[in-house]
Amino acid sequence: MKQSLSKRSTMAEIAAKAGVSIPTVSRVLHHRPDVAPETRKRVEQLLEEHGLIQGRAKKLLRKEHSGIVDMLFPGFDSMYSFEIARGVEEVIARTDLRLAISSTHHSTELEQRWMSKIQKSPSDGAILVLAHGEPRHFDPLHRHNIPFVVVDHGGELGPDTPSVGATNWLGGRTATEYLISLGHRRVAVITGPTTLPCSQDRVAGYRSALETAGLQINPAFICLGDFSPDSGYEQTNALLDLPEPPTAIFAGCDEQATGVYSALRARGLNIPDDMSVIGFDDVPTASIITPNLTTIRQPLREMGRVATTMLLHLINGEPLDSMRVELTTHLVVRDSCRPLDDAKR
Amino acid sequence: MKQSLSKRSTMAEIAAKAGVSIPTVSRVLHHRPDVAPETRKRVEQLLEEHGLIQGRAKKLLRKEHSGIVDMLFPGFDSMYSFEIARGVEEVIARTDLRLAISSTHHSTELEQRWMSKIQKSPSDGAILVLAHGEPRHFDPLHRHNIPFVVVDHGGELGPDTPSVGATNWLGGRTATEYLISLGHRRVAVITGPTTLPCSQDRVAGYRSALETAGLQINPAFICLGDFSPDSGYEQTNALLDLPEPPTAIFAGCDEQATGVYSALRARGLNIPDDMSVIGFDDVPTASIITPNLTTIRQPLREMGRVATTMLLHLINGEPLDSMRVELTTHLVVRDSCRPLDDAKR
Repeated sequence: MKQSLSKRSTMAEIAAKAGVSIPTVSRVLHHRPDVAPETRKRVEQLLEEHGLIQGRAKKLLRKEHSGIVDMLFPGFDSMYSFEIARGVEEVIARTDLRLAISSTHHSTELEQRWMSKIQKSPSDGAILVLAHGEPRHFDPLHRHNIPFVVVDHGGELGPDTPSVGATNWLGGRTATEYLISLGHRRVAVITGPTTLPCSQDRVAGYRSALETAGLQINPAFICLGDFSPDSGYEQTNALLDLPEPPTAIFAGCDEQATGVYSALRARGLNIPDDMSVIGFDDVPTASIITPNLTTIRQPLREMGRVATTMLLHLINGEPLDSMRVELTTHLVVRDSCRPLDDAKR
Repeated sequence: MKQSLSKRSTMAEIAAKAGVSIPTVSRVLHHRPDVAPETRKRVEQLLEEHGLIQGRAKKLLRKEHSGIVDMLFPGFDSMYSFEIARGVEEVIARTDLRLAISSTHHSTELEQRWMSKIQKSPSDGAILVLAHGEPRHFDPLHRHNIPFVVVDHGGELGPDTPSVGATNWLGGRTATEYLISLGHRRVAVITGPTTLPCSQDRVAGYRSALETAGLQINPAFICLGDFSPDSGYEQTNALLDLPEPPTAIFAGCDEQATGVYSALRARGLNIPDDMSVIGFDDVPTASIITPNLTTIRQPLREMGRVATTMLLHLINGEPLDSMRVELTTHLVVRDSCRPLDDAKR
């Protein structure tokens, strides 16, 4: 949190008046738990008198707040959700807030039901993972003055919606460039849901890498999946049934890649000798499957942490440095890709 | 929920008076979301007049409730916690309650801090996973009349503490019997934390199986671990350094077993040809590692569901059929164990 000079000198004044240290004043301002109740009350009063607490933050400190931050995510069935939740929890644990977690079970209907539920149960703010992206969808939150941050949105987000994502285009490009650098020319991709920008961007990065390398884009090599292992399994089978199958597969995510592994194994094919496979995410799964999965790491925990820190700023009525934050992806080389034999080129 | 005949006939009477169906009355009684607000109010009033809502449930329906059920678990770092949370969420999603999740990060201190936090922030009830088990530890919850159910407790639970677990002793026995049935005579176990009854019980089951088979218990074959992959890795190395290493390892849990796999692989040993490995839990990890892990399934999602259903009864002021529920474990045979060659016996 950046503090102006004048804010800092006011905090020093408050600290002196309250007979506490400046860090203690800061802790009260940021709702940290380790402050004695009487001290907190005294400092809050001084903060308010000096105009350092305004708007929503004022309400919050006046104990009209619920003390609850909500997180809505697709479900307890993916390491992706779990890793983001981990980051969110790490930040919430340092505050006096509690984290309420709800699952949409991948259903737009349940997501909308949650939106109407949230109007009745007070919430200080919300983290929405893979939420439906049309701006009007968030109207219930706007109406009730509930600040929120979206992680990996679906659809189109307006420019005013705070959001956190990863450099998916770059990640898709890096994955494909890596396979090309190993000599692969027939590179297939199995996508995530086509409604999700994070998935669209990865495929766009894939196309860009092929084009830059002067390789033709084969439409049969772009297979629609949905991030599930099942879709990885089915689409790999479809790819293997082509007259000229690919020599490398870029899976939409690590969990989908486990389905790719199963399909290849079921046909008696070896990874990476018969097929190179690269994933996306770098969830723990990637480093426990055999062979260990080469993948594009997106920093899911960090995304959860950054989104939550942004949300705490909003709850405090503080401005955000940026409405859209993209964290960088990078290649993690393990054992599932290898150079293409000259004979197969 | 069991209903006496008289309760059912009262509900029929209320349904008639309110001009709604009996299932609607039941939905109001059990806080299901799909009831129109005016209908809910009318039915609640009638339920109260007829004495069908009492005590805590009465308070709850009078909207003095927070609408929050808390879950405290060790951390977002294990599939074990995740699977239980999944079951809890499935039940909560069918109610108008929200689920607040906090992590102890495996720290007794953070657990105690949560206990003091909960006194300030109202909670309708709590699910405590692997909570510290001394009865006095739960005093803050008792004092504030917050009902709770413990899943897989640590320490000694009093007989009055509602809890859910699995048949850990039977599971440990089944795992060991299976290895013995494959001809293994030198069977080692890597334990979980020794403070946890679930872990102690598995080791007791291991001992029992060896004794029943007339095999000697070798103290060097009982290695202290803590459920982490690291402890699986370290203890496997210790076992392999013995003058006479085991031919089979019973890992404390599936995630620990991934560390056993890594240690064996680092020494160039093949699973199951050179060493049979069996796990415990049957989390998704078990069926994605190679070779797929033979394990003892404990129904973690079901445990979460059962604990939450018990908690909802308590919140409603209804008696429990049983204070302690143990769900059954069973053997899931996959590819990580094989009969011992005659030469090695």
